[in-house]
Amino acid sequence: MSENVSSRAEKSGLPPGSLIHVGRKLQDEIVIRTIDYDSGNFSESRLDNIEEAGQFRDNNRMTWIDLVGLHDIEKIAQLCKQFDIDELLIEDILNTRHRPKVEEHDSHIFLTLKMLSIKEDGVGINFEQVSFVLGDTWMISFQEQEGDVFDFIRKRMRADKGNLRKKGIDFLFYRLIDTVVDNYFNVMEHVNEAMEEMEEKVLRDFEKEDLETIQRYKKQLIGLRRNIAPLREAMSALQREDSPFISEFTTRHFRDVYEHTVQINELIEGQRETASGLRDLYMTEISNRMNQIMKVLTIISTIFIPITFIAGIYGMNFDHIPELHFTHGYAMVWALMLFITIAMLIFFRRKKWL
Amino acid sequence: MSENVSSRAEKSGLPPGSLIHVGRKLQDEIVIRTIDYDSGNFSESRLDNIEEAGQFRDNNRMTWIDLVGLHDIEKIAQLCKQFDIDELLIEDILNTRHRPKVEEHDSHIFLTLKMLSIKEDGVGINFEQVSFVLGDTWMISFQEQEGDVFDFIRKRMRADKGNLRKKGIDFLFYRLIDTVVDNYFNVMEHVNEAMEEMEEKVLRDFEKEDLETIQRYKKQLIGLRRNIAPLREAMSALQREDSPFISEFTTRHFRDVYEHTVQINELIEGQRETASGLRDLYMTEISNRMNQIMKVLTIISTIFIPITFIAGIYGMNFDHIPELHFTHGYAMVWALMLFITIAMLIFFRRKKWL
Amino acid sequence: MSENVSSRAEKSGLPPGSLIHVGRKLQDEIVIRTIDYDSGNFSESRLDNIEEAGQFRDNNRMTWIDLVGLHDIEKIAQLCKQFDIDELLIEDILNTRHRPKVEEHDSHIFLTLKMLSIKEDGVGINFEQVSFVLGDTWMISFQEQEGDVFDFIRKRMRADKGNLRKKGIDFLFYRLIDTVVDNYFNVMEHVNEAMEEMEEKVLRDFEKEDLETIQRYKKQLIGLRRNIAPLREAMSALQREDSPFISEFTTRHFRDVYEHTVQINELIEGQRETASGLRDLYMTEISNRMNQIMKVLTIISTIFIPITFIAGIYGMNFDHIPELHFTHGYAMVWALMLFITIAMLIFFRRKKWL
Amino acid sequence: MSENVSSRAEKSGLPPGSLIHVGRKLQDEIVIRTIDYDSGNFSESRLDNIEEAGQFRDNNRMTWIDLVGLHDIEKIAQLCKQFDIDELLIEDILNTRHRPKVEEHDSHIFLTLKMLSIKEDGVGINFEQVSFVLGDTWMISFQEQEGDVFDFIRKRMRADKGNLRKKGIDFLFYRLIDTVVDNYFNVMEHVNEAMEEMEEKVLRDFEKEDLETIQRYKKQLIGLRRNIAPLREAMSALQREDSPFISEFTTRHFRDVYEHTVQINELIEGQRETASGLRDLYMTEISNRMNQIMKVLTIISTIFIPITFIAGIYGMNFDHIPELHFTHGYAMVWALMLFITIAMLIFFRRKKWL
Amino acid sequence: MSENVSSRAEKSGLPPGSLIHVGRKLQDEIVIRTIDYDSGNFSESRLDNIEEAGQFRDNNRMTWIDLVGLHDIEKIAQLCKQFDIDELLIEDILNTRHRPKVEEHDSHIFLTLKMLSIKEDGVGINFEQVSFVLGDTWMISFQEQEGDVFDFIRKRMRADKGNLRKKGIDFLFYRLIDTVVDNYFNVMEHVNEAMEEMEEKVLRDFEKEDLETIQRYKKQLIGLRRNIAPLREAMSALQREDSPFISEFTTRHFRDVYEHTVQINELIEGQRETASGLRDLYMTEISNRMNQIMKVLTIISTIFIPITFIAGIYGMNFDHIPELHFTHGYAMVWALMLFITIAMLIFFRRKKWL
Repeated sequence: MSENVSSRAEKSGLPPGSLIHVGRKLQDEIVIRTIDYDSGNFSESRLDNIEEAGQFRDNNRMTWIDLVGLHDIEKIAQLCKQFDIDELLIEDILNTRHRPKVEEHDSHIFLTLKMLSIKEDGVGINFEQVSFVLGDTWMISFQEQEGDVFDFIRKRMRADKGNLRKKGIDFLFYRLIDTVVDNYFNVMEHVNEAMEEMEEKVLRDFEKEDLETIQRYKKQLIGLRRNIAPLREAMSALQREDSPFISEFTTRHFRDVYEHTVQINELIEGQRETASGLRDLYMTEISNRMNQIMKVLTIISTIFIPITFIAGIYGMNFDHIPELHFTHGYAMVWALMLFITIAMLIFFRRKKWL
Repeated sequence: MSENVSSRAEKSGLPPGSLIHVGRKLQDEIVIRTIDYDSGNFSESRLDNIEEAGQFRDNNRMTWIDLVGLHDIEKIAQLCKQFDIDELLIEDILNTRHRPKVEEHDSHIFLTLKMLSIKEDGVGINFEQVSFVLGDTWMISFQEQEGDVFDFIRKRMRADKGNLRKKGIDFLFYRLIDTVVDNYFNVMEHVNEAMEEMEEKVLRDFEKEDLETIQRYKKQLIGLRRNIAPLREAMSALQREDSPFISEFTTRHFRDVYEHTVQINELIEGQRETASGLRDLYMTEISNRMNQIMKVLTIISTIFIPITFIAGIYGMNFDHIPELHFTHGYAMVWALMLFITIAMLIFFRRKKWL
Repeated sequence: MSENVSSRAEKSGLPPGSLIHVGRKLQDEIVIRTIDYDSGNFSESRLDNIEEAGQFRDNNRMTWIDLVGLHDIEKIAQLCKQFDIDELLIEDILNTRHRPKVEEHDSHIFLTLKMLSIKEDGVGINFEQVSFVLGDTWMISFQEQEGDVFDFIRKRMRADKGNLRKKGIDFLFYRLIDTVVDNYFNVMEHVNEAMEEMEEKVLRDFEKEDLETIQRYKKQLIGLRRNIAPLREAMSALQREDSPFISEFTTRHFRDVYEHTVQINELIEGQRETASGLRDLYMTEISNRMNQIMKVLTIISTIFIPITFIAGIYGMNFDHIPELHFTHGYAMVWALMLFITIAMLIFFRRKKWL
Repeated sequence: MSENVSSRAEKSGLPPGSLIHVGRKLQDEIVIRTIDYDSGNFSESRLDNIEEAGQFRDNNRMTWIDLVGLHDIEKIAQLCKQFDIDELLIEDILNTRHRPKVEEHDSHIFLTLKMLSIKEDGVGINFEQVSFVLGDTWMISFQEQEGDVFDFIRKRMRADKGNLRKKGIDFLFYRLIDTVVDNYFNVMEHVNEAMEEMEEKVLRDFEKEDLETIQRYKKQLIGLRRNIAPLREAMSALQREDSPFISEFTTRHFRDVYEHTVQINELIEGQRETASGLRDLYMTEISNRMNQIMKVLTIISTIFIPITFIAGIYGMNFDHIPELHFTHGYAMVWALMLFITIAMLIFFRRKKWL
Repeated sequence: MSENVSSRAEKSGLPPGSLIHVGRKLQDEIVIRTIDYDSGNFSESRLDNIEEAGQFRDNNRMTWIDLVGLHDIEKIAQLCKQFDIDELLIEDILNTRHRPKVEEHDSHIFLTLKMLSIKEDGVGINFEQVSFVLGDTWMISFQEQEGDVFDFIRKRMRADKGNLRKKGIDFLFYRLIDTVVDNYFNVMEHVNEAMEEMEEKVLRDFEKEDLETIQRYKKQLIGLRRNIAPLREAMSALQREDSPFISEFTTRHFRDVYEHTVQINELIEGQRETASGLRDLYMTEISNRMNQIMKVLTIISTIFIPITFIAGIYGMNFDHIPELHFTHGYAMVWALMLFITIAMLIFFRRKKWL
């Protein structure tokens, strides 16, 4: 949570036009890859000179420009200007903690969302910002980091599998978003499994430290909700809107993505409930354990306290304690003690403490 | 819950057109049954050759094609093509963990929902996906598994009971859905009874393991809600809409089904409250029990500790302890101890601990 | 709750047209009473032959037909047919656990709601289903059981008190509903008093069994909400609608009833909060009690354990324990013990344990 | 709460036209005061004869008729008839536990709300019903009890301070409501202070009885919400509506009152949260205290139990216990006991129990 | 919270036109600064004579009048009159605890909001009221206190950085609000950090006093919500409205501010959840600690109670206790005790108490 807060804090006071990169610098160099294609042609290239990007704008093939690395503000601003992208949008692209949103402009649609991945320790979740600007025949995607989620799409395009190359750029746009959203389910499955295991553990044999882990799950889910929930709204807009940049065919597919975002949000809410339930469960188990401890103490105490008292009685030094001189006095006192012990044990068994 | 998550996860990355069967393979062979009827005629058959299905489309009788088993994607796609069913719908049909929904298309209405049954252990709940595609004179239903819920309807049709054969195919569509929804009440009754028993048990004589069971009920209800709640929306659409495929007569009946889905959702919410209340109850009973344990310990301790102390006093070896040499010293000390014990017992009775 | 569930369950699988009586059979014979009136005339009769009912439909007086007992489906169906009442409505009339609702049809308005009464044990609440069908000059009411709530109205009509006979049948309709709703306040007052008493008891001197009672209150309120809450919606419709069967004059009065349903729902919600609060209170009082118990144990233990230790010391059999041979050794040890005891008591008073 | 419930209960079964006074009879005689004014004139009088009221209706000055005491139904009905006030409204005026509401009629606006005051014990809150009927040049206010909240306004009018006499009767209407609503803040401040004190007390040094007080606060806030929350709606209507009885100038002022009702509702909700939090706090403090008690018990026990055991060892009567005959045996055993005690104390300090 | 309440309370009964300053008097003298500028010119001055303000109204440059200190009602009223600012607005300006709101009037827009700052103790949060009145070419800002948040903007204007001087007065208006809202993130970051630290502490090593701090956080967040939440609504209005005072260019920027208010509200809600979670955590940790204490007590007691009993047995004075005369009796009894102790330790290790 602190990340989200501090991102805005850093910028506080700066004018809206001042572009700064809010986020970690994740790689040294900006990498720009282009895919230029139509149903007949397909060419991939790596763009070193940012000025060359503009040429793709009005050629009559479709072009996907994929920019990785958000720290070189200069280059990004340059690229955006060639496609008439608003300065306020550039700010949103650079602010890697922006909430997901979609905005329709005159000459393009802007979408920003989060790409999730499990951290290497297998516990935490990484949020990577991905932004898209979709024009009529071109699309630019902005990522923070080299990743492989989109590689799958690239491979299919190269191999000309599916109908990716046959459809417009808006279909590619849809496919990329769909891939990102589908991946949410992978992450949710991971979270879900971790929480089921934890529940199992709390019910069987938990440790004091587990509370901390439960606490972390809770926060993770708050983070997930904040970063994913607004996407539903955005997808709802995309599947409803009558945009010139998105064909009716693709719009129908966006309805599907919208349904997935609804579903993922339901899953997150469900998990949040489960996480809250985990603390309650933990609390109940502590009480169960306390009961267990108290039972042991009480059984031991209530058996031995009375018989210790009897031993004390016959340890007294009165001149005249007749029992002390009985021939079987010692045996009788043992018998009495045994009787008390057995009576107590029966009492405990009745109370189901044993 | 994990099932729902993983279903999407499996598909992650695949293009929307790639049809895969998400779910368990529940039987070896796809079975296709047809019922062809109008007010005068009635014929049942089993379809072995998928190509024959098309013939039912435009004959002027009504036809119900019932397909059981969703693993043979090829055949299902073939069947769908003959009825011009959209590829995105086929995907929804095959994804056996889809949320219930209704979609009106140009040439048919699509509905998918869950059929519930109690697992054989008498505890768990099975969710089976059933999808319907309703055309003007035909309807196709897709089930995962041979089941007998619809057999009741088939029998009535054969015997020409009720007005099933007199009304259009939309009325049969309604009747099947009504049967599925009515069955929800059976399942809810089962859940309800189990929870009432559990409550009874927690209040009387619970065991540590019951917490686990309560936890399972909670999850079950989360599952029920997720799989049933969206149906209300779908039914609401069906009873409102002015669809060419559903007559006004049937629409009125859908209002009834809609009311039932409202009611079932209220029941689920009520049960969810009850399930949460069960944990609280359990917690309170643990505390009650702890109180009980502590009372026993305290009574025993506070009675014996003082008198043991007295015994200790007269066990001391001082040269001059005058009481030790009293003629009735021993009797007096017993009297004192008795007095203390009785005083304590009175104190406890006043405190209502005894 | 289980009643509501099972009512649907019993019917599961039956076609919509199959009329069955869902509910207890509360009396042997159906009783049908009619009141035929206008501003000048008034005649009461008991209808033995169901066929005679139809005559009241089109005479130009107003007629209230009051049917008691819902088990004789045949007769009810017959009666309904004479007034062109839809078969789906008959089903709703017979299902005595239907949620309250209002439905406007072409030739009549249908309303079903619950009549409440306190059970004879003074604790439980009875829910009786009452349905009304209001036509232009006639109204039929369907009750499960002979009751006296409507007797008050009948008496006023006989005595020609108020303006009941001067106004249309819709005004009588309003008056009956108003009577039912006003009675809800009686029941709520009863529930409220019981809960206040319970709160008092929990705060002063509760018993383990009270938890069960609190639990029962909770369920009762869930039941009340489910059976009353939907009525608000229904009344809201009646006070808004521009129905041909309800005059503007009566509509204004329905606004009043609507306000009462709003208020009763607020009361129920308030009570539900209170009921939840009761469990929390109970839990807190258990903890308070535990504190009390622990204090007693701790005071006794911490006073006697140290002085018992001292007694133990001088019970040792070492050859050389000089104190044992002091002339005032015994007195000194008592002084020491007294000192420790007083010190402890001061300590406890400071801690406010005494 | 029981008051609200019983008010309706008393009326149950009576026809809507039957006027009865629901509430306590707070004074012996109805008092009716009139203020007749325009920008030039001002006359105050006390009305003994109810028939004289009508004369104020159509004179061309503005008139405020203030009626105090609601038990003389006859007189109130008479007064209302002279101003064509609907019988259903009279019922609302007499029912002193009606929810706040506003109703626009053809010839007047009706508003009913609650006036709050702190009870004389400085703890409880009094709810007094005040109703207003506003016509074109006249306004009637109905109060239960002589009070002084409106005196302030009367004094200002006499002294011709502010623009009260220059504006229409609707402005006076606004001023009275504004005065009532402003007073809510006084009451809330009182409640707030009491709760802050209680919180302070719970955190420092609470008693068992405080739980009862917390419980009472909770109820008070439920009462406040029920009696104030609906006013927001009413004020919202007044500031929006385009009523002939309220000038645009006054409407703008009602926007202000509306904002205050929004704010007061937010305050009530905030306080409700705080009140719930108080119980949690109380519970936590009980647990804290229990911890404290248990620590004392445990420290005393774990120190003395082992050393008492040692004393017991050397109290045994075996023939051959070599230590007993050591020259420094007794000193050595004391040294051992001291060592154990110190070790324990170090252990407790490490655990931060000391 | 009490501040907010009392502010209204102080005014209770006063007519709406009576201007009083509700709030602390924070400085001695009102200070009025003006900045008069257009793209070519820039002049700053300090206004000593309030009458001079009017001259800025209709000159054709843009003017920002910044008034600091709200206690001199006279001067403020004078200033407002020169700009035709409504008397009701003056009241809102002076009431320093008003909820944030925006109001569009014929000749200006009014906005009031809170400026936050961390108190000097590094814990509390200061709320300062800032109000803006925006005309066509002028804007007046009203602050309670000299502060430096706006200094940053003034410096940029002097240095002619950014496009502040090139755009209209509405852009300056936007920039000031943006600065205030951006600062909210700083404060939230501070709150967030404090709470994370507290969570860390509760999980590791909390003290009784921490509960108080947690309680204070909760209140702080209630205060933040009350003072910030309504701003979202206000910003939503500004970014939607088609006001003559705000250019389309600036409106687009307000969309950004709106998004920030949405985000800040989400953060506050998230923190509120966290704060509630902290109490639960604290409670759980108390229970954990109690468990720890009880374990120690139980281990010590259950080990020593049985062996002390044995010592007691052989301290008895019976004439015939054969063991006492065994040659190795003493050693054997030690062996027995050792055996019991070891058995107990094994039992505890199995139970994972050690």
